[in-house]
Amino acid sequence: PLASQKEVHSTSDEVVEIHANVDDQPGEGLGYAMEQLMAAGAYDAYFTPIFMKKNRPAYQVTVITTSGQLTAMVDLLMTHTTTFGVRWVTMKRATLPRTFKTVTTQYGDVTLKIGNRGTQSKVTVEYDSAAALADRHHISLDQVRHAALLAYENELG
Amino acid sequence: PLASQKEVHSTSDEVVEIHANVDDQPGEGLGYAMEQLMAAGAYDAYFTPIFMKKNRPAYQVTVITTSGQLTAMVDLLMTHTTTFGVRWVTMKRATLPRTFKTVTTQYGDVTLKIGNRGTQSKVTVEYDSAAALADRHHISLDQVRHAALLAYENELG
Amino acid sequence: PLASQKEVHSTSDEVVEIHANVDDQPGEGLGYAMEQLMAAGAYDAYFTPIFMKKNRPAYQVTVITTSGQLTAMVDLLMTHTTTFGVRWVTMKRATLPRTFKTVTTQYGDVTLKIGNRGTQSKVTVEYDSAAALADRHHISLDQVRHAALLAYENELG
Amino acid sequence: PLASQKEVHSTSDEVVEIHANVDDQPGEGLGYAMEQLMAAGAYDAYFTPIFMKKNRPAYQVTVITTSGQLTAMVDLLMTHTTTFGVRWVTMKRATLPRTFKTVTTQYGDVTLKIGNRGTQSKVTVEYDSAAALADRHHISLDQVRHAALLAYENELG
Amino acid sequence: PLASQKEVHSTSDEVVEIHANVDDQPGEGLGYAMEQLMAAGAYDAYFTPIFMKKNRPAYQVTVITTSGQLTAMVDLLMTHTTTFGVRWVTMKRATLPRTFKTVTTQYGDVTLKIGNRGTQSKVTVEYDSAAALADRHHISLDQVRHAALLAYENELG
Amino acid sequence: PLASQKEVHSTSDEVVEIHANVDDQPGEGLGYAMEQLMAAGAYDAYFTPIFMKKNRPAYQVTVITTSGQLTAMVDLLMTHTTTFGVRWVTMKRATLPRTFKTVTTQYGDVTLKIGNRGTQSKVTVEYDSAAALADRHHISLDQVRHAALLAYENELG
Ligand code: NI
Ligand code: NI
Ligand code: NI
Ligand code: NI
Ligand code: NI
Ligand code: NI
Ligand code: NI
Ligand code: NI
Ligand code: NI
Ligand code: NI
Ligand code: NI
Ligand code: NI
Repeated sequence: PLASQKEVHSTSDEVVEIHANVDDQPGEGLGYAMEQLMAAGAYDAYFTPIFMKKNRPAYQVTVITTSGQLTAMVDLLMTHTTTFGVRWVTMKRATLPRTFKTVTTQYGDVTLKIGNRGTQSKVTVEYDSAAALADRHHISLDQVRHAALLAYENELG
Repeated sequence: PLASQKEVHSTSDEVVEIHANVDDQPGEGLGYAMEQLMAAGAYDAYFTPIFMKKNRPAYQVTVITTSGQLTAMVDLLMTHTTTFGVRWVTMKRATLPRTFKTVTTQYGDVTLKIGNRGTQSKVTVEYDSAAALADRHHISLDQVRHAALLAYENELG
Repeated sequence: PLASQKEVHSTSDEVVEIHANVDDQPGEGLGYAMEQLMAAGAYDAYFTPIFMKKNRPAYQVTVITTSGQLTAMVDLLMTHTTTFGVRWVTMKRATLPRTFKTVTTQYGDVTLKIGNRGTQSKVTVEYDSAAALADRHHISLDQVRHAALLAYENELG
Repeated sequence: PLASQKEVHSTSDEVVEIHANVDDQPGEGLGYAMEQLMAAGAYDAYFTPIFMKKNRPAYQVTVITTSGQLTAMVDLLMTHTTTFGVRWVTMKRATLPRTFKTVTTQYGDVTLKIGNRGTQSKVTVEYDSAAALADRHHISLDQVRHAALLAYENELG
Repeated sequence: PLASQKEVHSTSDEVVEIHANVDDQPGEGLGYAMEQLMAAGAYDAYFTPIFMKKNRPAYQVTVITTSGQLTAMVDLLMTHTTTFGVRWVTMKRATLPRTFKTVTTQYGDVTLKIGNRGTQSKVTVEYDSAAALADRHHISLDQVRHAALLAYENELG
Repeated sequence: PLASQKEVHSTSDEVVEIHANVDDQPGEGLGYAMEQLMAAGAYDAYFTPIFMKKNRPAYQVTVITTSGQLTAMVDLLMTHTTTFGVRWVTMKRATLPRTFKTVTTQYGDVTLKIGNRGTQSKVTVEYDSAAALADRHHISLDQVRHAALLAYENELG
């Protein structure tokens, strides 16, 4: 509890969540729009299936960004989706302070992201470094991920 | 078990389930396509959200129909969706033998569909008759539905 | 950038997004509720599939409306859905200033909605006018839409 | 309208809606996380399917809670999901004042939840009491639910 | 390729996939139905969100079972869902031959399922044994899972 | 009708639809699996959100392929997903005979796919050629698509 309160308080900041409902654009155009949003620095952009009036299967486009990037992201949504309107809300956010570390596995080097949770830590495997090794060795992503986590455990002793 | 086997055996027939994946058509065009499919006599037409390659949020269009209607339904899919290909499979089907019955409620008459399950029966309220009364009385659909089920129970004694 | 900032600033206003989670009402009752919400003037009402406790497949009902309409919309949700509670948040909104224009195609007249984005414009085809022509000529909605966009391009020269 | 305005005003309070997007954790771990969140007193916890970058099918985890429980819920999300960040927003909420009542059916006693809407009331069947009877009698949940609603109607006269 | 062909051929058998579309039953009744289907021995039962006519957000119920269990499963669907009809198709199936093995971790004993893929093997952690330890130690499911996989790797040397 | 019957009959062939339900693998591993399946020549590979037992939000992985590729695709699913079993069914398929054509727009050359439907034709814009021009000119995919369709109409006269 004490540890976790510190987590929330010390790292909380704000993000903006932008929503647009799209029922008049093909999915491939939305896929293209996501690439533009991510390339422009959105924290995240994703699609949620929704069901709208007149039997229209649609998607809600959500973008997570900063208030400083809001105007640029709204502009990209206006350009790359068919929407005539977007809405947004500011949300509080808590994130774990993180460090990066490289471990060596039988497949090659893999980057880990390590979150600091007071006396505990939280580890995740960076996708790009693991996917590159999976590609090279023709194995599954999970095999590389588990090898990296094993290497990390062994280093910790 | 004996009763239910009879159910399955005595009423089983076949339907065709047609699938088309659509990632290059707006949702409003799909809503329009659904209307055309239903108007042409499809048993059912519905959309399932699916996630396709290149980050494309898409929809699978499914049509349930008879083998006799297959060609007409494929033609409608080719006309009203952007797909260049559809696939289908024949499925066995079991349906309950059914009768219709009208009951009188404080809001007006409602039609019930009654399925025969041997010694048991299964009752459902026909949407259109209930929705008309809900509209007229400015109440919820559920209020009409429960009044109709109550009237049915009371008639049975 | 300059243009888009102006867009956001000059047209931003507020909407309210209302959420209710429904796991104890049939889908046909929700479809009926959507009709009541739209008829009462909601900007939008839509369903999002969600997965709740005790293996319950459910739907989140979302309504987009104004603060002035909030009470009426909450009342409709309480009447037409089974929910005992709803929640809402005010969101900022940016919309493009828009004008309407009619173009003539080989199928008949179609209404376009044109959004003003500074030096650029954004065009979309009004569904009802296009669907009416698709119905009359037994063609797809997309065929009418593209004919309308073509007529618009040709007018612009 | 008068009645419903009172509803909204007299019972409105606040809840916090917390979001986390998860694309690097198996579904079974998320199911386990939901149990921990509900056991710790979340009003609700649910999953929404979303589609994220790099063709990743993912889930948004949403938790509805109070501001007093926020820190504890964020801590549970950090412990039981793989996320490195969560975001939240405070929402207004309106709930119906409610009472509970037991009715006797041919299957046993069932608890009803009754919402007070001024001159109207709204009734729902408590799941656990109905499911227990359905289990004991090997019948469907709906059969018990309708028997309970019928008993309630008959008591009201 | 040789190995995998053997996999498919030596272990292929048949399953039946049953579908029912449900738009007139609350989600909590479907959750109850799933429990009945699983308790009766279905290989799997799950819900897919679908969007049906008249703006109805609905769910497709799917049951995976054997041809020997088909009648019993159809009967359960007729009893515990509101559907008046179900459809099914026989599918070929390939499964990995599997063995079970217990490993010891710092949290207690965990059961692993090991699939034989010729020269390779595939390992997964049995949910119930891992969830019990996560509950006892107040840690995440993933922590137990990774400890178990680590123990397995170390045993293999 | 005559035309469409010919369509179905002259071009019908068979595809295999493979299903695997995955509730114990992260979404990023599934995104990686999709890339492997598409690179190996699957006609299509996609994810459908499903809700499984024990509150598990999951995904059904579907692969569309030929009977000749079945073994290879099953092997890839066994390697790149956590599943211990897959199932498949053979489906009939109808596809439009198609030709490709390049048109010149103000942005550059775009490839069109043209389906032959007897006296009618059906046109779609090839994604990769359009996306390349959208990237180069910093415009939306839809702008390039509509320019290409306009160029096609003008060539037809
Ligand atoms: Ni949100
Ligand atoms: Ni399918
Ligand atoms: Ni929300
Ligand atoms: Ni006609
Ligand atoms: Ni278009
Ligand atoms: Ni029993
Ligand atoms: Ni009911
Ligand atoms: Ni199906
Ligand atoms: Ni404890
Ligand atoms: Ni793992
Ligand atoms: Ni299936
Ligand atoms: Ni540039």
